[in-house]
Amino acid sequence: MTKPTTPPGIYPHTQAISRANWPVRMKKVVLSPTPINDRTHELNPDLPIYDCSGPWGLAQEPDARQGIDRLRQQVIEARNDTEQLEQFSSQYSRDRANNLLKIGQNYGHYHLPRKAKAGGNVSQMHYARQGIITPEMEYVALRENLGFSEAELAERLGLDDGKVPGYITPEFVRQEVAAGRAIIPCNINHPELEPMIIGRNFKVKVNANIGNSAVTSSIEEEVDKLLWAARWGADTLMDLSTGKDIHETREWIVRNSPIPVGTVPIYQALEKVGGVAEDLTWELFRDTLIEQAEQGVDYFTIHAGVLLEYVPLTAKRLTGIVSRGGSIMAKWCLAHHQQNFLYTHFAEICDIMKAYDVAFSLGDGLRPGCIRDANDAAQFAELRTLGELTQIAWQHDVQVMIEGPGHVPMHKIKENMEEQLKHCHEAPFYTLGPLTTDIAPAYDHITSAIGAAQIGWYGTSMLCYVTPKEHLGLPNKADVREGLMAYRLAAHAADLAKGWPLAQLRDDALSKARFEFRWEDQFNLSLDPERAREFHDETLPQQNAKVAHFCSMCGPKFCSMKITQDIRDYVAEQEEAEQKMAEQERQQGMAEQAERFRQHGSKLYHEVD
Amino acid sequence: MTKPTTPPGIYPHTQAISRANWPVRMKKVVLSPTPINDRTHELNPDLPIYDCSGPWGLAQEPDARQGIDRLRQQVIEARNDTEQLEQFSSQYSRDRANNLLKIGQNYGHYHLPRKAKAGGNVSQMHYARQGIITPEMEYVALRENLGFSEAELAERLGLDDGKVPGYITPEFVRQEVAAGRAIIPCNINHPELEPMIIGRNFKVKVNANIGNSAVTSSIEEEVDKLLWAARWGADTLMDLSTGKDIHETREWIVRNSPIPVGTVPIYQALEKVGGVAEDLTWELFRDTLIEQAEQGVDYFTIHAGVLLEYVPLTAKRLTGIVSRGGSIMAKWCLAHHQQNFLYTHFAEICDIMKAYDVAFSLGDGLRPGCIRDANDAAQFAELRTLGELTQIAWQHDVQVMIEGPGHVPMHKIKENMEEQLKHCHEAPFYTLGPLTTDIAPAYDHITSAIGAAQIGWYGTSMLCYVTPKEHLGLPNKADVREGLMAYRLAAHAADLAKGWPLAQLRDDALSKARFEFRWEDQFNLSLDPERAREFHDETLPQQNAKVAHFCSMCGPKFCSMKITQDIRDYVAEQEEAEQKMAEQERQQGMAEQAERFRQHGSKLYHEVD
Repeated sequence: MTKPTTPPGIYPHTQAISRANWPVRMKKVVLSPTPINDRTHELNPDLPIYDCSGPWGLAQEPDARQGIDRLRQQVIEARNDTEQLEQFSSQYSRDRANNLLKIGQNYGHYHLPRKAKAGGNVSQMHYARQGIITPEMEYVALRENLGFSEAELAERLGLDDGKVPGYITPEFVRQEVAAGRAIIPCNINHPELEPMIIGRNFKVKVNANIGNSAVTSSIEEEVDKLLWAARWGADTLMDLSTGKDIHETREWIVRNSPIPVGTVPIYQALEKVGGVAEDLTWELFRDTLIEQAEQGVDYFTIHAGVLLEYVPLTAKRLTGIVSRGGSIMAKWCLAHHQQNFLYTHFAEICDIMKAYDVAFSLGDGLRPGCIRDANDAAQFAELRTLGELTQIAWQHDVQVMIEGPGHVPMHKIKENMEEQLKHCHEAPFYTLGPLTTDIAPAYDHITSAIGAAQIGWYGTSMLCYVTPKEHLGLPNKADVREGLMAYRLAAHAADLAKGWPLAQLRDDALSKARFEFRWEDQFNLSLDPERAREFHDETLPQQNAKVAHFCSMCGPKFCSMKITQDIRDYVAEQEEAEQKMAEQERQQGMAEQAERFRQHGSKLYHEVD
Repeated sequence: MTKPTTPPGIYPHTQAISRANWPVRMKKVVLSPTPINDRTHELNPDLPIYDCSGPWGLAQEPDARQGIDRLRQQVIEARNDTEQLEQFSSQYSRDRANNLLKIGQNYGHYHLPRKAKAGGNVSQMHYARQGIITPEMEYVALRENLGFSEAELAERLGLDDGKVPGYITPEFVRQEVAAGRAIIPCNINHPELEPMIIGRNFKVKVNANIGNSAVTSSIEEEVDKLLWAARWGADTLMDLSTGKDIHETREWIVRNSPIPVGTVPIYQALEKVGGVAEDLTWELFRDTLIEQAEQGVDYFTIHAGVLLEYVPLTAKRLTGIVSRGGSIMAKWCLAHHQQNFLYTHFAEICDIMKAYDVAFSLGDGLRPGCIRDANDAAQFAELRTLGELTQIAWQHDVQVMIEGPGHVPMHKIKENMEEQLKHCHEAPFYTLGPLTTDIAPAYDHITSAIGAAQIGWYGTSMLCYVTPKEHLGLPNKADVREGLMAYRLAAHAADLAKGWPLAQLRDDALSKARFEFRWEDQFNLSLDPERAREFHDETLPQQNAKVAHFCSMCGPKFCSMKITQDIRDYVAEQEEAEQKMAEQERQQGMAEQAERFRQHGSKLYHEVD
């Protein structure tokens, strides 16, 4: 055997480089070898790990005021179908420019907006439907495969014919995006982005919500949450700020985000009219969309399915309308006795989306807010309307995903997925949980991880996390960690249940490390190495406990894993002894045969006695 | 309306009294009324809550050295089929008597053992099969129904015919116990016990494991964990101690436990032979069973399904045998080249069990320890043997439940339940998780709550919790809380998905309180009121925030729940206005009609124009 050249640990890993010379960042876990006996070791292959942290990974110390590198800029410019504007198109953006500078925009790259050249469409769906494989598509293919070639992966998985079912090619990515079964949210004004894909034929993704409110939190806190959300594995981030300085908070977040950023533009629109839903207008909302699109928001939640005629369906519910966006639009509809302006202006919204490649996240404004209200008429009426809107968006080649509930008991979850697939034409589903019971405030990251794992298995493409503070308060950094870990493990459980070929590599590597008492490898392979290490040290803090052939649960004399190793050795010895005996018997048999042969006069043919 | 007589809050509640004059302790949540307008309130009915804390509930300050009241003693004595022994039957118990006193046994009731009169059988299954409804059976029926009569419950659930599907009668309990579909673990030497039932036609239960090891923890810590486990809702408790003073630790635990206590006697047997599995003998094990049975342990995990011929099936596994009991027995089998002595002496074990009414928890010694090993030949071979053993135990009228895995990905969970039902003849299933991925050490209470909720829905009767320390260390009190909350919410999610009639009452009450901003009611109805309150206060610590009509997530101007209330009012106003208009039109129509009537000469019959 050869000793590994790199010592065990977690390393940044950018081996996979796209044709556009664009490094696909991952982490690499280098494992220690398994001792076989005093002289021999078995090498354990490195494991690449999908990583969302971008430049905020292991090496770099954060300086949020600089903004991160714009590695995607070259890719956007090379297409030559966009132009840089002299100023922001939104009046509001221009009004806030001084405030933005005052609050402290001091990025390495001052952001001026880009837009599709007149009448153009720069959406990934548009390219895909023209048969173009973009660098973004190539990037996500490399990323989903963790940089493995199909041959390497087949070898790793022990598939002799070199074929891996479900291996992701750039052409497959293109087909899925063209068909609307997957989206790559990537606004041309977000060149800091490392592209990722959301679709049920890819790894299940996780979204983290952050955002301040009028009550609490500051811009710096929100950027810190973004940074840690990315480190802890958020695939996308929604900025749900509702307090002051929404515009400036968002600017800081986008300029520092390697992951797609989503928003609910109606929140800011409502701020602009002093919180009075009735005063909202299409013109004001339109300006808000453009403001955010030019900042670089990658997807917008749009509650265009809350139709006037559906609102009364919620009046007899136990908890009415619990979506903020949904309740704002419902109030507007009733106050004006008019149809939802997001619905009536939907085609115009599509025109904005395609000029920047902002994806729709069609909001479920009528999602159930409790177990009792799950899967009711209001919820499914809206879902069918979201399906109609999906088809309109697709006529514009605009990318779409569909938001889903909410609070749903386990036996009603599957119906949600089936109805969504049927009525929304296989557009990716993006669900909040669902929470499988209402009775555990402070533990709703768990009540909802149960539902999330299940619906992910059934086919949901992205899971919106819930933190322990759900229903009680605003999540702080510690809550972001709890929410993300619960959802990453739920998404991974879904990947395993779906049979995603790469998923089990990590489970197998970790379980092998666990079984062989390679404690540091076990920590490094886990979702949260810091906490795993910390919990271990709580019981056995000594350094030598990490090389001990027992764990704190059972103590040194009494370890089932150790006993199993003894059994394995024993069985191997038995087998060896049996083989030896069989060989002896065979040799003895041959000797007897030879003797008999001689006794029978050494003739070749004779009657057998 | 009348104001409620009791102010809102959580109260001990013992209204349900069995015929044996045995109070069934519960908690009662008294809710505040919903304000309708300045003068009117709508009363919200009290909600009884299933409670495991016994005397350790709200009122009493713990003194572990006293032991708790022996309320069941009268019930056991009244049957007149047991006798109190002069001394312990186990040699080991007699040897340790002084040590027990030295360590501090100073109970209000000094414990001397009882046993069935010569040759007798005192198991609940034995009574049930003779058609006897015991006070224990009546107790669990009252407990499962939360003290509601069927008529009361039907009214509460809005069922007009007064019938509640799945309402639990004492006769139904008897039938289920007689059929082996449910067990009531209740050793005659555990008179401190408040009986509970484990079966898939009852509320899903949760077990908490505690126990010291050679490495860490003390007796006082373990009793403190018991006390808090019961308060946090453990339905049963397993003492898995492996370190020193196992005998004394168990004595303290049983004398203080209102919930059934389970053990794995092979752990202590192994201690007695200095940790050398090969030195175990049937005689030593038998004495250990009797020792523990006379202390009052309610169920024993017995790894009698680990057969000699199954052991080699585990040698090619990624993680071999991970059950401690399983690996001890496997090692013993191989060392002696003999069949597992728990299997060969199974009938003798049954004789011990029935003399004290100890239930079997047939251990899954070959359960999978990682995703890769799930549902393999070794696991299912053992399961079929557990089914055979179940039938032998039932021939002795001994109660049985079956232990289940372990590590299982979501798509393989259902097969576990189906195989268990098929091969184990519907004996209750009692599963550890299962964990749905291996990659999240420090979060395995969540990876496993996902699997637990799912398998509970499919029909598992009791879920053995997993704490965040699983695989890493020994759970402390804080870990017990995390594990229990994760499992109680998983069990409740399973109850909801199974359609258990009482379950949703609590979800509905909490969601209504949430919607109406009755913060204190929301806290009091939640699984962990202290933490819910604490999380709320973290963002909005002021007392008046708890009566505020908004929450910290959205701030005062921007609350979807508030907006929904506005919508509801609006819809109500609209309806009122429409009714008014309709009434005006009707009156106007009548006036016009009258006018026409007069114009037509006030004749009753005329041609209509």
